[in-house]
Amino acid sequence: ARRGFAEVVYCEGKTPEQSALIMARLAARGESNVLGTRATREVFELLKKEVPDAEYDDVARAVVVRRGEQASLGSVLVVAAGTSDLRVAEEAALTASLMGSHVERLYDVGVAGLHRLLRQLDRLRTARVLVVVAGMEGALLSVVAGLVDKPVIGVPTSVGYGAQLQGLTPMLGMLTSCVPGSSVVNIDNGFGAGYLANMINRLGEA
Amino acid sequence: ARRGFAEVVYCEGKTPEQSALIMARLAARGESNVLGTRATREVFELLKKEVPDAEYDDVARAVVVRRGEQASLGSVLVVAAGTSDLRVAEEAALTASLMGSHVERLYDVGVAGLHRLLRQLDRLRTARVLVVVAGMEGALLSVVAGLVDKPVIGVPTSVGYGAQLQGLTPMLGMLTSCVPGSSVVNIDNGFGAGYLANMINRLGEA
Amino acid sequence: ARRGFAEVVYCEGKTPEQSALIMARLAARGESNVLGTRATREVFELLKKEVPDAEYDDVARAVVVRRGEQASLGSVLVVAAGTSDLRVAEEAALTASLMGSHVERLYDVGVAGLHRLLRQLDRLRTARVLVVVAGMEGALLSVVAGLVDKPVIGVPTSVGYGAQLQGLTPMLGMLTSCVPGSSVVNIDNGFGAGYLANMINRLGEA
Amino acid sequence: ARRGFAEVVYCEGKTPEQSALIMARLAARGESNVLGTRATREVFELLKKEVPDAEYDDVARAVVVRRGEQASLGSVLVVAAGTSDLRVAEEAALTASLMGSHVERLYDVGVAGLHRLLRQLDRLRTARVLVVVAGMEGALLSVVAGLVDKPVIGVPTSVGYGAQLQGLTPMLGMLTSCVPGSSVVNIDNGFGAGYLANMINRLGEA
Amino acid sequence: ARRGFAEVVYCEGKTPEQSALIMARLAARGESNVLGTRATREVFELLKKEVPDAEYDDVARAVVVRRGEQASLGSVLVVAAGTSDLRVAEEAALTASLMGSHVERLYDVGVAGLHRLLRQLDRLRTARVLVVVAGMEGALLSVVAGLVDKPVIGVPTSVGYGAQLQGLTPMLGMLTSCVPGSSVVNIDNGFGAGYLANMINRLGEA
Amino acid sequence: ARRGFAEVVYCEGKTPEQSALIMARLAARGESNVLGTRATREVFELLKKEVPDAEYDDVARAVVVRRGEQASLGSVLVVAAGTSDLRVAEEAALTASLMGSHVERLYDVGVAGLHRLLRQLDRLRTARVLVVVAGMEGALLSVVAGLVDKPVIGVPTSVGYGAQLQGLTPMLGMLTSCVPGSSVVNIDNGFGAGYLANMINRLGEA
Amino acid sequence: ARRGFAEVVYCEGKTPEQSALIMARLAARGESNVLGTRATREVFELLKKEVPDAEYDDVARAVVVRRGEQASLGSVLVVAAGTSDLRVAEEAALTASLMGSHVERLYDVGVAGLHRLLRQLDRLRTARVLVVVAGMEGALLSVVAGLVDKPVIGVPTSVGYGAQLQGLTPMLGMLTSCVPGSSVVNIDNGFGAGYLANMINRLGEA
Amino acid sequence: ARRGFAEVVYCEGKTPEQSALIMARLAARGESNVLGTRATREVFELLKKEVPDAEYDDVARAVVVRRGEQASLGSVLVVAAGTSDLRVAEEAALTASLMGSHVERLYDVGVAGLHRLLRQLDRLRTARVLVVVAGMEGALLSVVAGLVDKPVIGVPTSVGYGAQLQGLTPMLGMLTSCVPGSSVVNIDNGFGAGYLANMINRLGEA
Ligand SMILES: Nc1ncnc2c1ncn2[C@@H]1O[C@H](COP(=O)(O)O)[C@@H](O)[C@H]1O
Ligand SMILES: Nc1ncnc2c1ncn2[C@@H]1O[C@H](COP(=O)(O)O)[C@@H](O)[C@H]1O
Ligand SMILES: Nc1ncnc2c1ncn2[C@@H]1O[C@H](COP(=O)(O)O)[C@@H](O)[C@H]1O
Ligand SMILES: Nc1ncnc2c1ncn2[C@@H]1O[C@H](COP(=O)(O)O)[C@@H](O)[C@H]1O
Ligand SMILES: [Mg+2]
Ligand SMILES: [Mg+2]
Ligand SMILES: [Mg+2]
Ligand SMILES: [Mg+2]
Ligand SMILES: [Mg+2]
Ligand SMILES: [Mg+2]
Ligand SMILES: [Mg+2]
Ligand SMILES: [Mg+2]
Repeated sequence: ARRGFAEVVYCEGKTPEQSALIMARLAARGESNVLGTRATREVFELLKKEVPDAEYDDVARAVVVRRGEQASLGSVLVVAAGTSDLRVAEEAALTASLMGSHVERLYDVGVAGLHRLLRQLDRLRTARVLVVVAGMEGALLSVVAGLVDKPVIGVPTSVGYGAQLQGLTPMLGMLTSCVPGSSVVNIDNGFGAGYLANMINRLGEA
Repeated sequence: ARRGFAEVVYCEGKTPEQSALIMARLAARGESNVLGTRATREVFELLKKEVPDAEYDDVARAVVVRRGEQASLGSVLVVAAGTSDLRVAEEAALTASLMGSHVERLYDVGVAGLHRLLRQLDRLRTARVLVVVAGMEGALLSVVAGLVDKPVIGVPTSVGYGAQLQGLTPMLGMLTSCVPGSSVVNIDNGFGAGYLANMINRLGEA
Repeated sequence: ARRGFAEVVYCEGKTPEQSALIMARLAARGESNVLGTRATREVFELLKKEVPDAEYDDVARAVVVRRGEQASLGSVLVVAAGTSDLRVAEEAALTASLMGSHVERLYDVGVAGLHRLLRQLDRLRTARVLVVVAGMEGALLSVVAGLVDKPVIGVPTSVGYGAQLQGLTPMLGMLTSCVPGSSVVNIDNGFGAGYLANMINRLGEA
Repeated sequence: ARRGFAEVVYCEGKTPEQSALIMARLAARGESNVLGTRATREVFELLKKEVPDAEYDDVARAVVVRRGEQASLGSVLVVAAGTSDLRVAEEAALTASLMGSHVERLYDVGVAGLHRLLRQLDRLRTARVLVVVAGMEGALLSVVAGLVDKPVIGVPTSVGYGAQLQGLTPMLGMLTSCVPGSSVVNIDNGFGAGYLANMINRLGEA
Repeated sequence: ARRGFAEVVYCEGKTPEQSALIMARLAARGESNVLGTRATREVFELLKKEVPDAEYDDVARAVVVRRGEQASLGSVLVVAAGTSDLRVAEEAALTASLMGSHVERLYDVGVAGLHRLLRQLDRLRTARVLVVVAGMEGALLSVVAGLVDKPVIGVPTSVGYGAQLQGLTPMLGMLTSCVPGSSVVNIDNGFGAGYLANMINRLGEA
Repeated sequence: ARRGFAEVVYCEGKTPEQSALIMARLAARGESNVLGTRATREVFELLKKEVPDAEYDDVARAVVVRRGEQASLGSVLVVAAGTSDLRVAEEAALTASLMGSHVERLYDVGVAGLHRLLRQLDRLRTARVLVVVAGMEGALLSVVAGLVDKPVIGVPTSVGYGAQLQGLTPMLGMLTSCVPGSSVVNIDNGFGAGYLANMINRLGEA
Repeated sequence: ARRGFAEVVYCEGKTPEQSALIMARLAARGESNVLGTRATREVFELLKKEVPDAEYDDVARAVVVRRGEQASLGSVLVVAAGTSDLRVAEEAALTASLMGSHVERLYDVGVAGLHRLLRQLDRLRTARVLVVVAGMEGALLSVVAGLVDKPVIGVPTSVGYGAQLQGLTPMLGMLTSCVPGSSVVNIDNGFGAGYLANMINRLGEA
Repeated sequence: ARRGFAEVVYCEGKTPEQSALIMARLAARGESNVLGTRATREVFELLKKEVPDAEYDDVARAVVVRRGEQASLGSVLVVAAGTSDLRVAEEAALTASLMGSHVERLYDVGVAGLHRLLRQLDRLRTARVLVVVAGMEGALLSVVAGLVDKPVIGVPTSVGYGAQLQGLTPMLGMLTSCVPGSSVVNIDNGFGAGYLANMINRLGEA
């Protein structure tokens, strides 16, 4: 693998045939995991014919082929509030995991019900890196970054309506967060967050 | 007074002489309090010559003339995070107070240090209406509205830089808050928030 | 009920099955009303199999299950101009009503035909809280807030085209309204307006 | 004069010397009125040395030289709400007047106090063209256009703060007005509105 | 007819049944023309059952019922550049015509081929009011307004891509035009332009 | 010279001392012309002490040191409408000229007075490359590109107010121009346009 | 051919019948190539019935009819990074080629893998004009313009999501590029880039 | 120190007296370094009276008080292109250094002159974390992230004009970068980048 433990194919903007073909070739090399993001089930069906052990993750909309022993080092925690943010959260979790990180999830902990979040303070504080996925106003990033002393990566999502502006509002909110120790990736970019989280997490292994 | 207990003059865009003259006339009627918002000290100096008991509030940048007995009913709580938001918070507090509400303040309670806020849960929950003043990403509105069961008025402020967009970012964030029970007024509009808070607060007196 | 008299489920972004399941469980507890907002008829059909007394509101696109005696206290007035804003107005009216408020409607009163609105001055002035739903330029909020001395909640709608910017224009217009006593919720957020209106209305009962 | 009865010089972006020189030359021809918009007092002082009967209008920030008999035909009504919009309203009134129109003013009639406006219904309805100058949310254009059956030109102003966006909000609001019979010129463009109002007004003379 | 010679129904956001019903009732009164804008063919089919002399205009997407003698006074000229702007241009032409104006069209005259436009200078100059419909960068409004001495109404259209921003770019361009004598209506609002053009045109009849 | 015939220093964001020092060093090498853009007169005064033959161009706000024989090849035509756009036009003209191009100017030819422009058709058509500098709505680029068959570079300027949005409006308008054969550089970037014009012009020499 | 060697028809916004008819007529004249951009396969099928030697380019979504001997002068290089930008790149390449330029392609050379680009330095430097097509952040334009001394035309594409803003982000980035020698056309406007590239390229033939 | 090795005071929006007082108190505790960001020289002068060993950093506009032994662990590399971005780069470098990181700088390496950057490949690849500071179009982040396999933090700066939009353009560009392994902080937020870089860097020490 060029960088990390998975070769990645971004399937949006490719035909299902193109996507499946590229992934089949990468899987054939057998050297590293293969991850196809933004993949429809159709991509998966095509790929499975060539690569029977390919898997499809419905929520993350990703195709995965695992190769070799899977590493699971350190600790990445993916935090998300609403059900509707899960597809992005799972994309992040799957990516970091395939890249070799041990990944945990903490879902359904929004700022509306703060006490649910505070009850999980221990889990928050034992992670080495955190990914916070949040649509709406994105306040969750500030709250989590205020509770931990570790790097926190914010992923704004396009979930919401009206003034949410397809994710621009949480994106801008996360960037102006008054809590240091966090940074931001593109709207809905669970892959980018998972990739970076793994990269940071593994620095702690060196 | 036409509506509430104070006649209000918005001094921005008027010459100091115009502002002072209008306020002097209102004060002369002696029927209600007079409030001059966005007033420079110069307005105040001019007014004091005519109305010796006029007062100036440096932080709220407001001129005040009190007339008759001051009411102090119910309970409005003004919540703010940073020092730099205080001029807006004080404009809200002063307005609600002049209109006849009992006003309390809870300052320096940002989302970065959540525990400071949580320690004040009792004060938050005994207020009848709350005003939350916040710049940066405006996450404080969601957090506070999640902790209380009373109407919360959000005032985004123009304090911040870059992606804060002179207050547009917290304004948009407050409008998309995932916590019901809150609404929003214009950026830096402490007056509007204080006016509305008093209006709601006094419904509880009827 | 955690807060108020209805448990609320936001059906957008959930599968019909998920939505129906959650509501069926809440209805089974039998303690409070259940409200499913942004619900398709499909959600309702699924729910009705489990909860025969569930109702569907076509205009508000909401599913409702009523439990126990329905309160109808105080007075919330929902004002709207055009036919096309009714789905948002009805979401607000239904929400406030299920939460325990007495709700009245004043529809088809736009700023283009001011005299129709002025003929209803009495009804406007006897309400304890008002919700003004308006697309286009949103001028109705300023006009109504100028006529009454009660809190007015503005709901901009996404109805219009071109410079209306999917509701951003009335949202910005409502926020800069020169009439005090009003505040704003997100574009098309009838639920948020109805929830807040009930909260304020019931302060007047205490 | 190429078009109408006044030669116009736009002084912004020219040095005072340049502006005064151009206007002096135009005045020397003696054929038509000369109007210098966005002119500082300094421009006027320089011009007066050459053209002793030049006048300066403080509010409209305009320099004027009248030549020949002044026409005053038909009827243009300039409507404005706040004191702070007067500089734009006066630019419009002065322009239309110099171009040969009879101009009337109706100031201090905002949507917040509708009854003041309604009391002037007769004056509104006897005008041949109306110019409505409004900052804040610009609702006044819709209200006035709904009351009369004549062309109404809206001029949004940059007066306001926060969500008013230096005039973009009333500009967008005026463009999406639900009342037909109106159109819009650029923010603060009193000159353009007065010019067009005179053009339309004089069609009624033909 | 309340205002002008046609009753207008805006069909977008109404069901075909609602639209047809309202128009049938208006046509039954028989007093004035009836115009249904943004109407699908389905609306027309429904209406024709009740009102056999109803007509449908494919390009303008409008339903029309003519009643009584049709006036055709003065002269409105509708100017447009591209084929793709015709649906808006025809909405304007049809509206002004139904309201009683004599309407002419000048199509396929863009700024790219200026000489085609200049060859029509006579027709441009004999019109009493002009409507300029333009997508792309909207430069046509400035060019036309520079050639005539009559009021010109600009209608930006949403035709274009990328930086055209669904019509915002020509809208902003038209508003900042350096040529006086023009004003602007909402993107794609052919109806508003035609309505206003007729209003101005008929001033010239008085 | 690294690329072309002049070394360029962008003086904005440097102290006058820094700017003068860098230019003095480049001039000392004596190999190529030196151009300091966005330079205050102070920069020039400092430089002149070291480099007595340095020149200052007030309109273009540029410092120039000429070295060796000056080339003047081919033909670049800089076109501009208003007086206020001249500082950008002159920056373009000076840059192209120092880089070795023969430069001509055609100023005061706006779309408002098209005939002035058309009278210069010969000069427009004999240029090898054109630079069109325009603020307001930027329509001049489309008009000029429609008249010639050579590459036209558009430079939007920040001159204007309100909807002109500090140059964004002409920038967007130029990008959506319906006339092929043109491209656009950044707002006010006379340097970039002049640099590119010279580059293209000199292709014609090869 | 009016300008260049191909007559161009922009098929978007025309019916397939209209597009095919216009192109058939142009082809019948037999004087120059005919190019239909943004054409569906349906347009091609209709045209082929009349013009059997018409061709369809799937990637560029263009219909082509070649007439006479094809010129192939000078050298235009089209550079693109991702697979998803190819439809725009091919539109540019096809346009320049039909207009008479010799066109080369350099694809799959993004900034992520700089060394692939650097290995092609010779090909970059032998081109007379370059077209750089890039979505995402558009950095490729700056990198390429920094490596060559020839005019570079940037075409931002709408490929990406979230903060990419349908191409606005690379468009703005390309306009603010710190490397001189480049200019920008509209988002996805491969045609405009190809047209201009040919125009510049052929200057080098004179 | 609550978090890291320096107590931080954000001086913007505080009076010099307030800033100096807070820093003096923190310095008196003697436990950790004290950093005052966005501090004027006046703040420093006031502080020096109380804390003689306070230092002022002109470029980073920061006041520093060092306490105890200074750690210098791992390796943070701050990369910047132009002179004008240095104040942000130095804020980042100073912050990371005070927090305990070994910091190196790589300045004057823009995308315009790629070879200067490539010559430093070794230094780029030996850093554990990188901070890339870039105004203009922000392309440098993509280029650097493509060359290294370590986390890269992008800091857009507000340096530029026109389409640079005070830093929004590089901010959006960095967020849509097609190279994984990077994330973004607010415009001009050197402090946030330095803080986070240290946090990540020190993970590598554990
Ligand atoms: N139409 C709506 N718009 C915004 N928020 C809503 C809406 N309807 C319900 N909600 C909120 O969504 C919450 C339920 O979300 P969920 O748990 O995802 O079903 C409720 O408590 C409300 O706060
Ligand atoms: N306040 C104004 N806003 C916009 N355009 C104006 C204004 N005043 C004058 N103009 C226009 O500017 C032209 C004069 O411009 P100039 O030749 O630069 O002085 C006049 O003919 C008007 O069309
Ligand atoms: N295409 C249109 N765009 C904007 N407003 C329109 C349009 N067509 C009709 N209208 C306006 O909508 C009103 C009728 O609205 P309604 O009562 O909802 O049918 C008319 O009186 C017009 O003022
Ligand atoms: N007015 C300008 N606008 C944009 N870029 C410029 C300008 N003047 C010079 N430049 C660019 O800035 C570079 C010099 O930058 P510097 O090394 O910071 O002086 C030159 O090579 C040009 O590419
Ligand atoms: Mg933290
Ligand atoms: Mg609450
Ligand atoms: Mg009121
Ligand atoms: Mg009217
Ligand atoms: Mg004209
Ligand atoms: Mg041309
Ligand atoms: Mg180059
Ligand atoms: Mg990398």
